[in-house]
Amino acid sequence: MSWEKHVRKVVPYVAGEQPKDQDVIKLNTNENPYPPAPGVAEVIRNFDCEVLRKYPDLNAAALVDALARHHGLDSSKVFVGVGSDDVLAMSFLTFFNSGKPILFPDITYSFYDVWADLYRIPYECQALDEDFCIKKEDYLKENGGIVLANPNAPTGVLTELSVLEEIIAANQDVVVIVDEAYVDFGGRSCVSLIERYENLLVVQTFSKSRALAGMRIGYAMGSPKLIKYLNDVKFSFNSYTMNPLTIAAGAASVADEAYFQEHIAKVVATRERTKRELARLGFVFGDSRTNFIFAAHKTASAKEIFEALRAERIYVRHWDKPRIADYLRISIGTDEEMDRLIAFLEQFLRK
Amino acid sequence: MSWEKHVRKVVPYVAGEQPKDQDVIKLNTNENPYPPAPGVAEVIRNFDCEVLRKYPDLNAAALVDALARHHGLDSSKVFVGVGSDDVLAMSFLTFFNSGKPILFPDITYSFYDVWADLYRIPYECQALDEDFCIKKEDYLKENGGIVLANPNAPTGVLTELSVLEEIIAANQDVVVIVDEAYVDFGGRSCVSLIERYENLLVVQTFSKSRALAGMRIGYAMGSPKLIKYLNDVKFSFNSYTMNPLTIAAGAASVADEAYFQEHIAKVVATRERTKRELARLGFVFGDSRTNFIFAAHKTASAKEIFEALRAERIYVRHWDKPRIADYLRISIGTDEEMDRLIAFLEQFLRK
Repeated sequence: MSWEKHVRKVVPYVAGEQPKDQDVIKLNTNENPYPPAPGVAEVIRNFDCEVLRKYPDLNAAALVDALARHHGLDSSKVFVGVGSDDVLAMSFLTFFNSGKPILFPDITYSFYDVWADLYRIPYECQALDEDFCIKKEDYLKENGGIVLANPNAPTGVLTELSVLEEIIAANQDVVVIVDEAYVDFGGRSCVSLIERYENLLVVQTFSKSRALAGMRIGYAMGSPKLIKYLNDVKFSFNSYTMNPLTIAAGAASVADEAYFQEHIAKVVATRERTKRELARLGFVFGDSRTNFIFAAHKTASAKEIFEALRAERIYVRHWDKPRIADYLRISIGTDEEMDRLIAFLEQFLRK
Repeated sequence: MSWEKHVRKVVPYVAGEQPKDQDVIKLNTNENPYPPAPGVAEVIRNFDCEVLRKYPDLNAAALVDALARHHGLDSSKVFVGVGSDDVLAMSFLTFFNSGKPILFPDITYSFYDVWADLYRIPYECQALDEDFCIKKEDYLKENGGIVLANPNAPTGVLTELSVLEEIIAANQDVVVIVDEAYVDFGGRSCVSLIERYENLLVVQTFSKSRALAGMRIGYAMGSPKLIKYLNDVKFSFNSYTMNPLTIAAGAASVADEAYFQEHIAKVVATRERTKRELARLGFVFGDSRTNFIFAAHKTASAKEIFEALRAERIYVRHWDKPRIADYLRISIGTDEEMDRLIAFLEQFLRK
């Protein structure tokens, strides 16, 4: 018998391409087109590397405290990890152990089913309606937990807070995770609900609105009980996940509220302008509240547009999957980048 | 029914204290007393923080390639993670799924049983002999996998390579992990055996010999098949665990072989001098090949010495556990730090 028989075999998540060439217009992984707050570069440039010989603060207190202050919460309600993927994966492992299926939409962040498979958690996907909205009643049946991205990815569609609250209130025997990776670009956060619902975990990230995808910082907010259970599992896996440069960079980002707001406003303005241009070119899409637009063309094939853009060194994202094969997910870049995208599409669609 | 019923409840690992005061002599977590190679500070100081807006290289190729070159391996045989704890935890999850108990010594790195508990992996601890050596025959019975720290922690005892090879050869139906966190301080690595044994995974870390505990870098070396399975699980958990600063810092450390060898030699020289002093003061201990000494005193109580040292602001490690309650684990600091330790012990033991 071979050792291979007992390997946990999985089908890994496939991330968007990260081409090494600098001349690519990269609109395929929802990165922020602007650099992180200037304070980030400053703390890194001035960092005393002698301290790296020692283990870091295992509570990442400087970062946890900064986030707690930012959200008006006690620090006991905040958990940090190596990107929101780390936080979400750890949450699946910690909270979804009932043996009953967990619920999430059929079209959503494609890591959810990967984590469920990895941890052998049963799941049932709930079909979004024709407008890519969730149907509330799908989440009012018996389940082992719920995960909802809000706004959803890759659709960009926002669910009303009142609908989410109904779902959370009706499911107090399980943990409900709301993944708010994109909420800063125009959603309303569920964070105000954590005082009322002990079973609600709200997850956010520094990768999009804070332009720190490279630094790997995600966090969860919830009742002190939820956070304590998450920390117990984290300290059973790896005590020290956040290095001191990450902790300092994250705290510096949170400290600069003006930069944060200003650059979100820039992305949102570019997004709204891009929506008008795409509509003019015959694209249809929902009212994205994120830093991307999920758009189908009335007549042209998404796959053909995707490939033509790629040949032009403009990268967007396309999935050859049921229900979404007609769509492209286009991240919002700088105004110049979007102008080049629109100019190419204009020419391509005229053919 | 409450959501709490289905939480994965665990007893987390308890790490050594990280006091914030700078005037403590910290000999309790086996950190290196010297700073990391100067190239580390240089790459961090000169780092272009604009790239942090983008996701990092998910293969951490610059670091993987540097390690592969250093060990004379192909890059397909190297896996990197957020400290060796991340690498080891991921390896437990990936390889130990047979339902049969995995085997490790009763006295060893205390994260092994925590990971087994976290992932519900059955395990059987094998008693070390009176000299804290493993008994080879304990590892020749049916099992679901084997983990051996070599040199062992917290004992510092080295197992001969020939004994390890016998164990690996006799267990080709399971994965055998050799955790070499301390091997650079005087052990012989198993890495030479990975060409012959597809089931051998060798794990090392930047936290001790490379003075980069803060940066969180660990790695595994093994057959391309083992590494591929590990990467599949990693990419099913979190695609991007290593930020670009970590990747660059790690590669810079590996690039400076002269600094590496010189500072290992310094720690080893201080260790050998400390051994002589401790022996003179009535301590007994094995022939440590690590950056710590695991010592009992012939007459004085370890717990009392531990507490007296602590009152003097000298931190060492003591476990109130069966078989090792008489021992102190003392990390090797600078010569000056060890002189202060010895001076205090001399005075304390004279009482």
